[in-house]
Amino acid sequence: MVNSAIVNTYPLSSYTFGTKEPKMEKDTSVADRLARMKVNYMREGMRTSVEAILLEHNHPHILLLQIGNTFCKLPGGRLKPGENEIEGLKRKLSSKLAANSSALQPDWQIGECVAIWWRPNFETIMYPYCPPHITKPKECKKLFLVHLSEREYFAVPKNLKLLAVPLFELYDNVQRYGPVISTIPQQLSRFQFNMINNA
Amino acid sequence: MVNSAIVNTYPLSSYTFGTKEPKMEKDTSVADRLARMKVNYMREGMRTSVEAILLEHNHPHILLLQIGNTFCKLPGGRLKPGENEIEGLKRKLSSKLAANSSALQPDWQIGECVAIWWRPNFETIMYPYCPPHITKPKECKKLFLVHLSEREYFAVPKNLKLLAVPLFELYDNVQRYGPVISTIPQQLSRFQFNMINNA
Repeated sequence: MVNSAIVNTYPLSSYTFGTKEPKMEKDTSVADRLARMKVNYMREGMRTSVEAILLEHNHPHILLLQIGNTFCKLPGGRLKPGENEIEGLKRKLSSKLAANSSALQPDWQIGECVAIWWRPNFETIMYPYCPPHITKPKECKKLFLVHLSEREYFAVPKNLKLLAVPLFELYDNVQRYGPVISTIPQQLSRFQFNMINNA
Repeated sequence: MVNSAIVNTYPLSSYTFGTKEPKMEKDTSVADRLARMKVNYMREGMRTSVEAILLEHNHPHILLLQIGNTFCKLPGGRLKPGENEIEGLKRKLSSKLAANSSALQPDWQIGECVAIWWRPNFETIMYPYCPPHITKPKECKKLFLVHLSEREYFAVPKNLKLLAVPLFELYDNVQRYGPVISTIPQQLSRFQFNMINNA
């Protein structure tokens, strides 16, 4: 892990984007997803998941994966039972954003944990704390800052679009991005961004 | 400064609360306040201010100062031109929360900066980033986590009330607490709270 209050960001032109085979969602509806979570909870206990905040450019932009025309999410996903969270996030990032060739794997630099969200019940609502009366939360989701290098090659699954969304678009936009993503600007406000322009 | 991802919190019964002479607001209206900021900006440039997040107890509670029956704020305030932010926050905390006797001064342990807010214009609206087109922001406000010891004596100015507000009351409550205070739960979510109960 890299811990630094100074984060280098590079312009989007630093990065190369390709495509790869689709990564399908496991569920076709929110109800299916919550039902699957319930089954997994019975088997493995609390779901732990990790997501990445990848930044680029001037006024920092966050890389989000868009499914269809509306829903946006951070790259990341569920850890395997007992999996180390940093290793698990690297695995998920490679699955969602890296080419299949091992030569083209980015050296994912996982930085600080910037937020932790809790799902108390098998419902969509999450909180940035474990509510006091909840003894058996159903999911713990950690958001990590990921430091990108000056050059990266991303391969985006064909069923997803990769968007670079500026902080000012996310801020105060819970309607479009939901409570987790719309408050990333507040969580990143303490960092100093060192904006590097390529020659 | 103390940097730790683990924060000890103690129950409210750890602390002793007294009162002291009132600390009056310098302005009687928002318009007066913004006008005063403008005058100060002309004289001293961008206002820099610091505020403290003081936590207590189980499900963490934040200490807020209430003015009248509605408006709540974090303890803190404006730095003097050139003043060190940590020293300035200690000065402001002593002014707002400590007894006048130097023997009763808490040893303020200023922790991590958890958020930075920017005021682009002489208006009430602030953002958790400096908007890209703003070259001369008018205020930069930094929020610091303050680690309390097991015992403290607070002296609260008579015109203010000290409230201990739980995170779940602040969360998603921008109507009552405003954008800065209502997103403190998200900024603190990454910390592990080590809740210590006194014998």
